[in-house]
Amino acid sequence: MTKPFIAELVKRMSLREKAAQMTQLTPLFFGLEEDMDLTGPLGEKQLKPDDMKHVGSVLGVYDASKFIRLQRKHLEENPYGIPLMNLCDVTHGLRTVFPIPLAMGCSFDMEAVKQSAAVAARESAYMGIHVTYAPMGDLVRDPRWGRVMESPGEDTYLNARFVESMVAGFQGDDPRSPEKVGACFKHFAGYGAAEGGRDYNTVDLSRGVLREYHLPAYLAAVRAGALMAMTSFNTVERIPATVNKWLLRDVLRKEWQFAGAVVSDFNSIDEVICHGVAADGKEAAYKSVTAGLDIEMMSTHYLNELEQLVAAGEVNEALIDQSVIRVLELKDRLGLFENPYKDCDPAKSEEVNLSPEHRRIARDVARKSIVLLKNEDVLPLAKRGKIGLAGPFAESRKVLGGWWALGKAEECVSLKEGLIQAAPGVEIVTAMTGELERIRNGGDVKDEVADAVDTLRDCETVIVAVGEHMEDTGEACSKTELRLSPNQRKLIEALSEAGKKLIMIVFSGRPLVLEEAEARSAALVQAWFLGNESGNALADVLFGDYNPSGRLSMSFPRSIGQIPVYYNRLNTGRPQKSESDKDFVSSYLDSSNSPLFPFGYGLSYSRFEYSGLSLSEDALTASVQVENVSSVGGTETVQWYIRDIAASVSRPVKELKHFEKVSLQAGEKRTLHLKITKEMLSFYADSSSDPVFEPGEFQIMAGRHSEDISGITVRIEEI
Amino acid sequence: MTKPFIAELVKRMSLREKAAQMTQLTPLFFGLEEDMDLTGPLGEKQLKPDDMKHVGSVLGVYDASKFIRLQRKHLEENPYGIPLMNLCDVTHGLRTVFPIPLAMGCSFDMEAVKQSAAVAARESAYMGIHVTYAPMGDLVRDPRWGRVMESPGEDTYLNARFVESMVAGFQGDDPRSPEKVGACFKHFAGYGAAEGGRDYNTVDLSRGVLREYHLPAYLAAVRAGALMAMTSFNTVERIPATVNKWLLRDVLRKEWQFAGAVVSDFNSIDEVICHGVAADGKEAAYKSVTAGLDIEMMSTHYLNELEQLVAAGEVNEALIDQSVIRVLELKDRLGLFENPYKDCDPAKSEEVNLSPEHRRIARDVARKSIVLLKNEDVLPLAKRGKIGLAGPFAESRKVLGGWWALGKAEECVSLKEGLIQAAPGVEIVTAMTGELERIRNGGDVKDEVADAVDTLRDCETVIVAVGEHMEDTGEACSKTELRLSPNQRKLIEALSEAGKKLIMIVFSGRPLVLEEAEARSAALVQAWFLGNESGNALADVLFGDYNPSGRLSMSFPRSIGQIPVYYNRLNTGRPQKSESDKDFVSSYLDSSNSPLFPFGYGLSYSRFEYSGLSLSEDALTASVQVENVSSVGGTETVQWYIRDIAASVSRPVKELKHFEKVSLQAGEKRTLHLKITKEMLSFYADSSSDPVFEPGEFQIMAGRHSEDISGITVRIEEI
Repeated sequence: MTKPFIAELVKRMSLREKAAQMTQLTPLFFGLEEDMDLTGPLGEKQLKPDDMKHVGSVLGVYDASKFIRLQRKHLEENPYGIPLMNLCDVTHGLRTVFPIPLAMGCSFDMEAVKQSAAVAARESAYMGIHVTYAPMGDLVRDPRWGRVMESPGEDTYLNARFVESMVAGFQGDDPRSPEKVGACFKHFAGYGAAEGGRDYNTVDLSRGVLREYHLPAYLAAVRAGALMAMTSFNTVERIPATVNKWLLRDVLRKEWQFAGAVVSDFNSIDEVICHGVAADGKEAAYKSVTAGLDIEMMSTHYLNELEQLVAAGEVNEALIDQSVIRVLELKDRLGLFENPYKDCDPAKSEEVNLSPEHRRIARDVARKSIVLLKNEDVLPLAKRGKIGLAGPFAESRKVLGGWWALGKAEECVSLKEGLIQAAPGVEIVTAMTGELERIRNGGDVKDEVADAVDTLRDCETVIVAVGEHMEDTGEACSKTELRLSPNQRKLIEALSEAGKKLIMIVFSGRPLVLEEAEARSAALVQAWFLGNESGNALADVLFGDYNPSGRLSMSFPRSIGQIPVYYNRLNTGRPQKSESDKDFVSSYLDSSNSPLFPFGYGLSYSRFEYSGLSLSEDALTASVQVENVSSVGGTETVQWYIRDIAASVSRPVKELKHFEKVSLQAGEKRTLHLKITKEMLSFYADSSSDPVFEPGEFQIMAGRHSEDISGITVRIEEI
Repeated sequence: MTKPFIAELVKRMSLREKAAQMTQLTPLFFGLEEDMDLTGPLGEKQLKPDDMKHVGSVLGVYDASKFIRLQRKHLEENPYGIPLMNLCDVTHGLRTVFPIPLAMGCSFDMEAVKQSAAVAARESAYMGIHVTYAPMGDLVRDPRWGRVMESPGEDTYLNARFVESMVAGFQGDDPRSPEKVGACFKHFAGYGAAEGGRDYNTVDLSRGVLREYHLPAYLAAVRAGALMAMTSFNTVERIPATVNKWLLRDVLRKEWQFAGAVVSDFNSIDEVICHGVAADGKEAAYKSVTAGLDIEMMSTHYLNELEQLVAAGEVNEALIDQSVIRVLELKDRLGLFENPYKDCDPAKSEEVNLSPEHRRIARDVARKSIVLLKNEDVLPLAKRGKIGLAGPFAESRKVLGGWWALGKAEECVSLKEGLIQAAPGVEIVTAMTGELERIRNGGDVKDEVADAVDTLRDCETVIVAVGEHMEDTGEACSKTELRLSPNQRKLIEALSEAGKKLIMIVFSGRPLVLEEAEARSAALVQAWFLGNESGNALADVLFGDYNPSGRLSMSFPRSIGQIPVYYNRLNTGRPQKSESDKDFVSSYLDSSNSPLFPFGYGLSYSRFEYSGLSLSEDALTASVQVENVSSVGGTETVQWYIRDIAASVSRPVKELKHFEKVSLQAGEKRTLHLKITKEMLSFYADSSSDPVFEPGEFQIMAGRHSEDISGITVRIEEI
C-alpha cells in the first residue's frame, strides 16, 4: 500500500516534475559551485534550470559537506520538500578499501564479506551517501572481461551467498538505521556473459541457462531485501536489459515480486538507440518506461519525452506514477523524508574513514582472500636471514583494484612495507622493483634484469611480485592476452635460470594465464588486489602468522585459447576418459580440458584428509570426516557438490550446494554434515519460472575443491 | 499419402523387424566376409544374427563390388524384399577430392559448388552409395573448432546458398535419376556453436539467435528438397539435438514440413545417456523415438528397447510406423525398390573416378576457392628465372583436408609439381621442404633453417608453403593455439630477416592466426586444403593464368584472444568510434576489435572501383557501378549488405543479402542491381517461427567486402 503522503505528493506533481523525479544526474548539473548555464551541460540535455529543482537523485557526491549544501539548496527549491537522494559506487569499500569482490569471493567467508560491507556502509552513511551501486552478482566465466574483478566469481551458489551477505552488510536490518545504506544490486541481467569477454558486448543465452546459472544471484539480492536494482548494458535475447520487458516486468516484478526501484546504468536508456531497438529518444523513453525502468541515469529522455508520450496517449500516466511512487517510497525507506541528511556528518565521516578498526577488519578480510596456489615447502618464511624481493608490485601501493571509490594508493601498505613491519629482523634485498608503469609500456629491460640477478646473487629465495596494472582491470578493461607482460616474464626466467627459489605473488583483477610462471615457481600466491592492507595481509600469510585459507572463486585457464573453462559445465555426450584420450571425444588436440587451477582450489600450511563419506538412513543427510593430519592448526573449506545423473535437461557434472569453513587444530578430526534439501536437487527445466525436482539418482560429493572430491550415489524418489 | 505397398509392408512387419529397419550399422555387422559371431560386435550390442536381415541401412560401404554382394545377400535374406540402403560421408568429393567446404564457400560461386557436388554424386552413385551425409550447414564463428573445415563459413546467407547448391548437385531434379544420390543435411542444429570451439561441447543460444543465424541454412536444405536430416551431437537448450522434441517435431516437422527421414549421428542416441538426459538405453530409445528420430546410427537401443516400450504402453506403435514409413519412403524415392543396386557398377565406377573431366572441374573449383590476402606487387610471378620454395607444404601431397572419403594423397598434385607443370622454364630452388610431420612434432630446426637460408641465397623471392597438418583439422580436432607452429615461424623469421620477398601460402582447414606471418610477407595466399588439384590450382593463381577471385567465407582473427570475431555482430550500446577509442566503449585494451581479414575479403590482380550507389524511385532497387580500373581482366564479387537501423530487437550492423560475381575486362564498367525483397528486410523477432518485416530505416550497402562498403539510408514503410 502506498503511504497516503506519497500518494498525495504524486497527485500534486506535474508530469514534468514526475519525469524529473525519475531522473538522476551528476553534481555538475545541480549548479552548486557554478551558475546554471544553458549553453553548458544543461543545454546539451535540453533541460531548464527549473527542472533541477525536481530531479530525484544525484549520482556520486562523495563529500559530506558538499552533500549537506546540496540537500539544503534542494530542499529550499523543491516546492514539495522532496529530498534529494545521493547514490554512489561503493563496491569494495569507500575510503577503507577491501579486496576486490572476486578476491572476497575467495574467502568463502560470508561473515567477513558482510563485515566489509558494513564498514563500507558506515563510511558511506557519514559521507551522505544513501545508496551504493553494489553488490554485483554477475556470474563470470571469461577472464578477458575486465569486470570479473567486481564479481564474486563463476559459481551460482557462491555468488548468491556473496550477494546476500553484501546486502545484509550494507542495509542491516533496516537501511534507515544509522550507519546503513541502501543496496542496489546489479547488473540485471547477465552482464558477465559478454561475448568474447569484451565489455558491453552482446550476451546470448537460452532462458533455461540464464535462469539456472545467471539469475539466482540477483534473486538472492531481492530475497535479501535490496532496495534497488540496476539494469545491465548488454542485450538479453537481443533486447537491451534496460528496455527488456520480459526481464523487468515478468521476471523481476511479477515472478520475484521485487518492489524496489529499478535504475538504468550510466546513459543506458540513451544507448538503446545505438543498440538499434529505438529510433530516437522518444522511442527509448517509451520502451524504458513501458518495461518498468523507474530511474534514468544521466540521459534525459524521460524529462524530454514523457510529457509528449502521455499527451499522445502512448503512455498511461498511471505507469509513470508507479515509477514515481517507487522512487518516493525508496526515499521513505531510507528515512529521507524524516531526515534528509540521514547520517551525513563531516566530522564523523573524518573519524570513521580508514579508522584503525576499519583497517583491522580490512586486514582480516584481505588475508582471508589470498589464495595459496603452490608451495614446495618454501612457505611460510622464517623471520630471519635474507630474502630477495623483485618485481613491479614489490614496493607498489597501487593495489586497490578497480572501483576504488575514495581509496588512495598512498594509504595502502605495499608488500615491502608489510614484510618489514612483520619481520623487522629480515634483511630484504630489492631488485627491479618500482617498474609498475613498465608492465604496460614494455621497453628493453635486458640490462636491468641482469643487474637484478646480480643484486640478488646471495638470496636463495626471492619473492617476485608480478601481475597486471590495477587500472587494466575493471570496466572497459577487456584484454586478449592474459599472460604476464614480456618484461615480467623475462625477469622470472632470468631469476629462475639463476637457480633461485621463486615465491611468485600475483597481483591481478582476474585469473591470469600463469602456466609458465607456475612452472618456474617454488610457491605461487594469488594476491588479487587486496586494498589498503595488502602488504600486511600478504606478510601475515608469507610468514605464517595467518595460515592461508582462500579458495578460488574462478578457474584459472591454462591458456587464452581454452576460455571459457569453468567447473560446473555439462558433460557432453563424449567426455574425455583421461587426459590422453583424444579419439573422437570433446577435447583439444593441443591442450588439456582442465584448468590450471580449478574452482574451489587453494592450499593451506595444514594438510587435511577426507574420509568416510556416508549417507543417513533416509539418505537426506550426508556426512564426511575431515582431519587435520599436519602439525599446524588451520582452516579448511569443506565443499559439497551435487550432480543430478539424469534429468529432463542435461545437468552440470557438479554444482556447489554448500560449503563450510572449519578450523581444525593439528590432529583434530571432525564430522561435517550436509542436510540435503529439495532446493539443492531442483533446477530450471525450461524457460518457466519455477525450479522442479525430478526423482532419480544423484551423486553427493564432498572434498577439497571442485576437482578433488569423492562422491556417493543415491536414489531419491521424493523430498 | 503413403503408397499402398509401403503401408502393406509395414502392416506385415513385426515390431522387432521395424526396429531393425530403423537401425543403421557398419558393414562389419553384416557378416559378409566373416561368420556372424555372437561373442563379437553383435553380441556386444545384444543382437541376434536374424536381426541383420532386417536392418535398414548400412553405414559406409565404399566399394561397388562389395555393395553388390551385400545387397544380393540381403535381398536373399529379407523376407519382404526390402533393399538395404548405403549411406556414406561424401562431403567434398569421393575419389576426386574438391576443396574443403570452407574453401568452396570462398568461391562465392554457387555453380561451381553445385558442380563439385554433381561430380561427387556421379562417383558415389556408381560406387553404390545412395545417400551422402552432406551438406553441412553449421554456421561457424570459432576457428578453434576443427570442423569449421566442413562448413561453408560464418555467414547465414552464404551458408544457405551453399547448402542448396550442394543439395541440387547431389540430388539433381530427382535423386533416383542416374548419377544422383540423396543428400542428408547436417548437423541439425547449431553444431558449429560449440562452447570454447571444443568439438561436441555444449551449445547455448537464445531461440531468436538460433533462428536468425543458425537455422536458415538447414531450412534452405529442406526447401531444396534434401531427403534426409542428421541431428547434431550437441545440446540445444541443454537437450541433445538427437532427442530434442522442439527441434525435431516443432521446428523441423511442423514448421518446415520436412517429410524426409531423420538420422542420429554416430552413436548419438546412446550418448544421450552420457549427456544425462536418459538414465539408460530404454529411456534413450523412448526419448529419441518420441522426438521423431527415425534412424539410429550405430547404437541399438531401438532394436533392444522398442518392443518393450510398446508392450508397456509407453510408446504407441503408430509412432514407430511413422518412422518406418519414412525409411521405406526414402528407399522408394531413391528408386531402390525398383532397382536395389541403383547405379552401382564397378566398371563405371572405375571409369569415372578421378577422370580427367573430374580433375578439370576440381581444378577449376580449387582455383576459385583460393583467396589472395596480400600482394605487394610480387604476384603474379613471371614464368622465368629462379624461385625459392620452402616449407612443409612445398612438396607435400597431403592437401586433402578432413573427410577425404576415397581421396588419396598420392593422387594429389603438390605445389612444386603444379609450379613445374605450369612453368617448366622456371628454376625452382627448394629448401626445408618435406617436413610435414615436423609441423606437429617440433624439435630443434636451427641448423636446418640456417641451411635453408643459405640454399636460397640467390633467390630474391621465396614461396613459403606453411600451415597445419591436414589431420589436425576436421572432427575432434579442436585447438587452443592457432598460430603457425614454432618451427615454421622460425623458418619465416629467418628468411624474412635474410631480406627475402616472401610469398606465403597457407594450407589450413581453418582461419589461422596469421598476424606475425602477414607482417613478414610480401604476398599472402590462403590455400586451405584444395584437394587433388591443389598444386595446379595454386600455380594457376601464382603465375596469373587464373586471376584470383576467392573471398573469405570466415573472418581471420588477429589473435586467439579475440575469438569470436565475425562481421554480422550486433552494435552494442557503446561501439568504438575509432581504433584508438578505448574510453568506456566495447573494445579490448590490447587489441583492435576488427579481424586481420574480414568476411568477404580477397584481392585480385585487377583493381575494381565502386561508385554511384543509388536507389530507384520506389526505393526497392539499389544500383551500383563497378569498374575494372586496372589493365587486366578479372572477376569481382559484388557484395550487398543491409542493416535494419532500429527494430524490436537489436539487428546486426550488416548482413549479406546478395552477392554477384561479375567478370570485367580491363577498363570495363558495369551497373549492378539489388532488388530489395521483403525477405531481405525481415527477421525473427522472437522465439516464434515466422520472420517479420518492421517498417523503418534501412541501410543498403554495396562493396568489396564486409568492411569496405558504402551505404545509403532509406525509409521503407511497406514492401
